[in-house]
Amino acid sequence: MAIIKNKSPVLFFYNNSKKWLMNISKKESLHTHIGVIKHADAIGKEYGSRLMTNKDKYVYLLEPTMYDYIMKIQHGTQIVYPKDLGYIAARAGIQDGQKILEIGTGSGSLTSFVASIVKPRGHVYTFDVDENFMKIAEKNIRKSGVSKYVTQHNLDLKTSKEIPVTNMDVALIDLGDPWIVIPKVRQMLKGSGSIFAICPTMNQLEKLTMALVENEFTDIESTEHIIRNIEAREGKTRHSFQGIGHTTYLCFARKAFFDKTKAKVTKAKVTKAKVTKAKVTKAKVTKAKVTKAKVTKAKATKKSPKN
Amino acid sequence: MAIIKNKSPVLFFYNNSKKWLMNISKKESLHTHIGVIKHADAIGKEYGSRLMTNKDKYVYLLEPTMYDYIMKIQHGTQIVYPKDLGYIAARAGIQDGQKILEIGTGSGSLTSFVASIVKPRGHVYTFDVDENFMKIAEKNIRKSGVSKYVTQHNLDLKTSKEIPVTNMDVALIDLGDPWIVIPKVRQMLKGSGSIFAICPTMNQLEKLTMALVENEFTDIESTEHIIRNIEAREGKTRHSFQGIGHTTYLCFARKAFFDKTKAKVTKAKVTKAKVTKAKVTKAKVTKAKVTKAKVTKAKATKKSPKN
Amino acid sequence: MAIIKNKSPVLFFYNNSKKWLMNISKKESLHTHIGVIKHADAIGKEYGSRLMTNKDKYVYLLEPTMYDYIMKIQHGTQIVYPKDLGYIAARAGIQDGQKILEIGTGSGSLTSFVASIVKPRGHVYTFDVDENFMKIAEKNIRKSGVSKYVTQHNLDLKTSKEIPVTNMDVALIDLGDPWIVIPKVRQMLKGSGSIFAICPTMNQLEKLTMALVENEFTDIESTEHIIRNIEAREGKTRHSFQGIGHTTYLCFARKAFFDKTKAKVTKAKVTKAKVTKAKVTKAKVTKAKVTKAKVTKAKATKKSPKN
Amino acid sequence: MAIIKNKSPVLFFYNNSKKWLMNISKKESLHTHIGVIKHADAIGKEYGSRLMTNKDKYVYLLEPTMYDYIMKIQHGTQIVYPKDLGYIAARAGIQDGQKILEIGTGSGSLTSFVASIVKPRGHVYTFDVDENFMKIAEKNIRKSGVSKYVTQHNLDLKTSKEIPVTNMDVALIDLGDPWIVIPKVRQMLKGSGSIFAICPTMNQLEKLTMALVENEFTDIESTEHIIRNIEAREGKTRHSFQGIGHTTYLCFARKAFFDKTKAKVTKAKVTKAKVTKAKVTKAKVTKAKVTKAKVTKAKATKKSPKN
Repeated sequence: MAIIKNKSPVLFFYNNSKKWLMNISKKESLHTHIGVIKHADAIGKEYGSRLMTNKDKYVYLLEPTMYDYIMKIQHGTQIVYPKDLGYIAARAGIQDGQKILEIGTGSGSLTSFVASIVKPRGHVYTFDVDENFMKIAEKNIRKSGVSKYVTQHNLDLKTSKEIPVTNMDVALIDLGDPWIVIPKVRQMLKGSGSIFAICPTMNQLEKLTMALVENEFTDIESTEHIIRNIEAREGKTRHSFQGIGHTTYLCFARKAFFDKTKAKVTKAKVTKAKVTKAKVTKAKVTKAKVTKAKVTKAKATKKSPKN
Repeated sequence: MAIIKNKSPVLFFYNNSKKWLMNISKKESLHTHIGVIKHADAIGKEYGSRLMTNKDKYVYLLEPTMYDYIMKIQHGTQIVYPKDLGYIAARAGIQDGQKILEIGTGSGSLTSFVASIVKPRGHVYTFDVDENFMKIAEKNIRKSGVSKYVTQHNLDLKTSKEIPVTNMDVALIDLGDPWIVIPKVRQMLKGSGSIFAICPTMNQLEKLTMALVENEFTDIESTEHIIRNIEAREGKTRHSFQGIGHTTYLCFARKAFFDKTKAKVTKAKVTKAKVTKAKVTKAKVTKAKVTKAKVTKAKATKKSPKN
Repeated sequence: MAIIKNKSPVLFFYNNSKKWLMNISKKESLHTHIGVIKHADAIGKEYGSRLMTNKDKYVYLLEPTMYDYIMKIQHGTQIVYPKDLGYIAARAGIQDGQKILEIGTGSGSLTSFVASIVKPRGHVYTFDVDENFMKIAEKNIRKSGVSKYVTQHNLDLKTSKEIPVTNMDVALIDLGDPWIVIPKVRQMLKGSGSIFAICPTMNQLEKLTMALVENEFTDIESTEHIIRNIEAREGKTRHSFQGIGHTTYLCFARKAFFDKTKAKVTKAKVTKAKVTKAKVTKAKVTKAKVTKAKVTKAKATKKSPKN
Repeated sequence: MAIIKNKSPVLFFYNNSKKWLMNISKKESLHTHIGVIKHADAIGKEYGSRLMTNKDKYVYLLEPTMYDYIMKIQHGTQIVYPKDLGYIAARAGIQDGQKILEIGTGSGSLTSFVASIVKPRGHVYTFDVDENFMKIAEKNIRKSGVSKYVTQHNLDLKTSKEIPVTNMDVALIDLGDPWIVIPKVRQMLKGSGSIFAICPTMNQLEKLTMALVENEFTDIESTEHIIRNIEAREGKTRHSFQGIGHTTYLCFARKAFFDKTKAKVTKAKVTKAKVTKAKVTKAKVTKAKVTKAKVTKAKATKKSPKN
């Protein structure tokens, strides 16, 4: 049973459009459209209790979860929404103990969410180039309580020659041009490691997929996730009149090794005299076959739960 | 750099419809439509490498993630799919260290996924009544490598008088009639603790929501998640011709305290003689008001990312 | 080449959120946020031309289509939106020459749309009980230019004993409790005739389907239609950030004859003494079997374009 | 009351996956998985009646609608599905009396549907280049009963210098590269006339939209339509487990006149000496402004039913 104390984090919740997240302070008050709440009235209450404002509205004192921190994040850039965060975690199999590379820290919403999963034995190494956004992200990550599991780097991985981290389990990319960093990311991933990229446009999905194919990734999957609210009431259940629009497309893949040298060997049935020329020819042929095979595999990759 | 050894778990991956998950054994072979693979050929390779079958098809040796274990779970009953697993984790803010109550173990897909997140300091307490399904779930949970963080109980929480666990952070319910256990679940949850229920039909959503309202839950939200695959190829990008059908609706809520005693006191202006009757009457009135208020809040609860 | 004259109907179009539909009048002006347009400036222009407002904004002079009349309809009650109108026409195979029964005229949006299709040889007979709404609908239908093909009736088909029309090709129902009128509608439909009902809630879909099963309808299909806008721009194509919410669910079915008399004859092997009782019993048995069979068929009814 | 005669068209309907459409012939039988039906047994029955096969299955004798003809069309190429056909009709406001231009006849599904709406006073002029497909389309259109309202042309409008028809109300385009014919289509459309294009890929949407902008079209809207089946049963209502995949994206627009000459005049404030040069400069400036304005309008164009 958790009791609210002075300085405790509290989500003052009226409904999903009217909610406020802060650490309470006994001298302060929360002024809202629906009335005033004195922080002091929350002290000593159990999380889940409610207070009445001076306008006779009930406000619940909820214990903030990572979801609440993310939804109340201070926007520098666009956040990644829970419906997409969730799929990233589930599809990449993100779990405790993993080392995560993130390129494009943004507001830190994805950073915080992933850190809350891989802790305490895992870590998130996140890279960005805009110092102002990085400051905002730093603040958000700290509010979420996971600073200990996140290391921010100011480094442009598109141009830098450094390999700052290696053997990462998962790489998360949120850039306007993610395909540029794929070769670099590949070097930092463990074999079979996963990539997930945030791609707001179809064009990005397309260019990125081509880069993944060329850089020896497999299990390439692009998806979008539509969330729909349902108003469930006795005798009157229906979907919400309010629609939720597009957030982003997601692109997933796993690092593989195409082992082109081995293929060449198994196919070489040439006499000594023709060796050099044949090897060159075979290499070209193998590469073409590989590219085609990749496209075929990319086409064939469909996820069908009911099968 | 992880090298595959004898007994290592390997996901033999051809494409998303043809993949096989097992611990390799140097004397065995994998026989498939696309050819034969000797397990021994995988030993000593780095995860991500590929082998060629005798039918000249490439099969990748991937390192299994929790996603792979879930997709390859042995079905006793219906599994919970990644698109839904992900939202459950993100919306409930499930993280390391939490104590999770699960009613209805099913195949253990949700159990394993959640265990992989709350470990190493958290735990999942899962309850079911069917011994055969529980055996299957036990096997699946063990294969996923998270047995240490899961305790299975054979106990019918719909009828039992026991309160086997308390102060849970999150309760996950996968029953045909989840509304029955709401009062019991409430007792086992901490204040502000979350509930998530798997509801395949609209009727279940409706009945459950009514029970949540009556049992003093707030932030009630019902959703469904549609996943669509996109085939991203140079010059030919479009959604997949293959549609993915309905899996389940999801219902979320947080435990609150409606504090009826306080309300009763503020409203009681009765003489001593009428005390008992008035209390009863007021309680009924307050309850009715509470129910209506809940419905109003439920209606108003819309999640809109762009706001 | 159509030239705009005085009194011509014109859709003044700035964009999809700012457009105005009216018959122009040479002395009038259109005052909007984006500037003023003198109607007289449109006279003599070809439809498709544009004028510039005094705020330097271009406004197109488009020739109104039925879509424009529907989107600009004066709302008494909720209109039926084009995405749903279209499916009704396509699924029921509505075409020129058909006789359409409509119960629940609403704003006349569906009425006008259907009239524009069945004209000139077909007709829409529409029934409502609210005189005020009927006046509004009458105005809307007239503005759409299809009054000649619509007959409005003030008659409560839920309670009336009349059969005002017969042998209808299609029946369209937009009531809060459509299941009540199914037996009556059946009498007014031709054999194999179609029904389409507007059902905003799942509960209505459920009750209506049960009534359709009991009243000998087949090919029962409930659907919902999600429309998503795509912003297609060079190098930056993606779905719209603006989502469109729920409008309604649709329920379709076709009138059949279950031929119970024939079934009774084939099954009746009773002696004279028991004739009356047996007939009654058999009828009940047959009805029960019929209901179960219908449910089975309803379950099996899936529309899969790719098959 | 329509009675089935010899040669009458009948849809033998078991369920939505098992149905057969043909003109009956008294000597024939229909052999199916669910049993045999003698055509002769249908003669004299009212549409909507049912027969029992020798395997005790009920098969309904339904009166075919345009929907049935389209769903049972003989596929030469891909058909256009009802959910898309319907939106095309509704959004373009297609109605009786209109003249429709179609480029790319395909299987004739869209052709037949549209013809059934614009008849008897309207007409569909459809163009294709593949004689074999055109023969199949011709057969399908004839079976649908609308041959009288359709004229097929073997003419390549991408390359031909002819303007075979003019002043069309609506142009429907189903080509792999629709942007190529936009200038030609523009010449054949009336002012304010509508275009609708079938675009299976995002790339086509993108290129087409750019061509529409450059060719002075307005009210440009790209959409996709997702249809979901709902299984509505007492106490067990939910969406179908069977998903329906992508069919096509749709692109709509209306022909406008950008009147560039007029704009130049209203902006020209130049002295005589600089006239020629200024005119040229102004023209370039105006054109650039026009293009930008178009893009802005295209971005701003969102359809929001709740407004």
